[in-house]
Amino acid sequence: MNAPGYFISFEGGEGVGKSTQARLLGDWLAGLTGREVVLTREPGGTALGEELRAAVMHGQDMGPRAEALIYAADRAHHVETVVRPTLERGGIVVTDRYLDSSVAYQSGGRDLPAHEVEHISLWAARGLRPDVTVLLDLEPGYAVQRRAAAEGKGGLDRLERAGLDFHTRVRNTFLERAAADPDRWVVIDAAASIEDIQAQVRVDVAVRLGLTPVVVEATGIEGPGSDPEEDAS
Amino acid sequence: MNAPGYFISFEGGEGVGKSTQARLLGDWLAGLTGREVVLTREPGGTALGEELRAAVMHGQDMGPRAEALIYAADRAHHVETVVRPTLERGGIVVTDRYLDSSVAYQSGGRDLPAHEVEHISLWAARGLRPDVTVLLDLEPGYAVQRRAAAEGKGGLDRLERAGLDFHTRVRNTFLERAAADPDRWVVIDAAASIEDIQAQVRVDVAVRLGLTPVVVEATGIEGPGSDPEEDAS
Repeated sequence: MNAPGYFISFEGGEGVGKSTQARLLGDWLAGLTGREVVLTREPGGTALGEELRAAVMHGQDMGPRAEALIYAADRAHHVETVVRPTLERGGIVVTDRYLDSSVAYQSGGRDLPAHEVEHISLWAARGLRPDVTVLLDLEPGYAVQRRAAAEGKGGLDRLERAGLDFHTRVRNTFLERAAADPDRWVVIDAAASIEDIQAQVRVDVAVRLGLTPVVVEATGIEGPGSDPEEDAS
Repeated sequence: MNAPGYFISFEGGEGVGKSTQARLLGDWLAGLTGREVVLTREPGGTALGEELRAAVMHGQDMGPRAEALIYAADRAHHVETVVRPTLERGGIVVTDRYLDSSVAYQSGGRDLPAHEVEHISLWAARGLRPDVTVLLDLEPGYAVQRRAAAEGKGGLDRLERAGLDFHTRVRNTFLERAAADPDRWVVIDAAASIEDIQAQVRVDVAVRLGLTPVVVEATGIEGPGSDPEEDAS
């Protein structure tokens, strides 16, 4: 526990709803605990981070090590100037991606050794790990295939298949890391509705942070597939 | 040896003449060996490096880890796109600063553990060390005190003294590293004239690279001659 604050990260592939779920959780935790809540993200949660992010975007032939080091530099600055100061004030930090994304994308996706990427990330962050990490898990084909169907295509083209392989390796790395450290990780099926996912996130995060006993009522979130009878407690 | 090419780095404080000596050595080696010679520098030997260098300049409150990681990212890209390809073609790379500057400035100067900074630099470079490293060694007070005298000042002000302490720690780190690995390092007194320094650099580098027997005549360098401070590298 990074006393006196709480540090929560959301992880998962692209388009699984991390930023939405992070925002909803942050609002709820602010009301529940009365604490300061800082919503942030990596890469790019700081002005320097935005510059580094731009450098990554421009450097189209950048190698995997240069890319991993730039993300680590962004993390070092983000932790030092945003995350740690909030935690030290007793606040709650909810971040959209943190070091597990580096490991999953740089090693699972790009063949760098996982323990090396993790070592550099932890060095950047002076060892700071989240108290809870929420993995919003989704089969990578789900989104791609749904889009292909919507466009009336019979299947995936070559580039889409290569992308699918990459995202499948990333997903598997997330799942392996979650299985190896169940005290930190919560794995939630991201194919459910926004409100069902959020109800589950609230329960799991509250339990991990010791905010129980707490009665999680209907979330009251409006959105597709909402079920007013849902009681996730 | 990074066969089939040769990799030479120049190290030392600011204003000791690294870029001038690197250029003169490169010209001489090109004539002597007939090989391709690439003159380069860190940070900033690539387009991405220039962007990263700008990010460091803008990030005035950046912590030491973020800074070290940005320099490492620059190194990773520089080695991958400039240094290794040249060495693999059998060429000679002469660089103005390399990983020893990171260790000296980030650890000697800023209190990060030296072995950690070196580890990250070597990871960035996939283990590539120079065949020969030339340290142009100069007492840091030399330049500052001469300037103070030229301006008619009796001594150093507070900021100048703090700067002097920093540069003295950097210099000591260079000297310690050179003493610990004499097979790689050549230490040359940078208070001598440009031509005397270059004559010594040629002899020492030729011996280390096995380019002897070679007769090093008077260098015949034209120029302002005896003032190393005129070359601000």
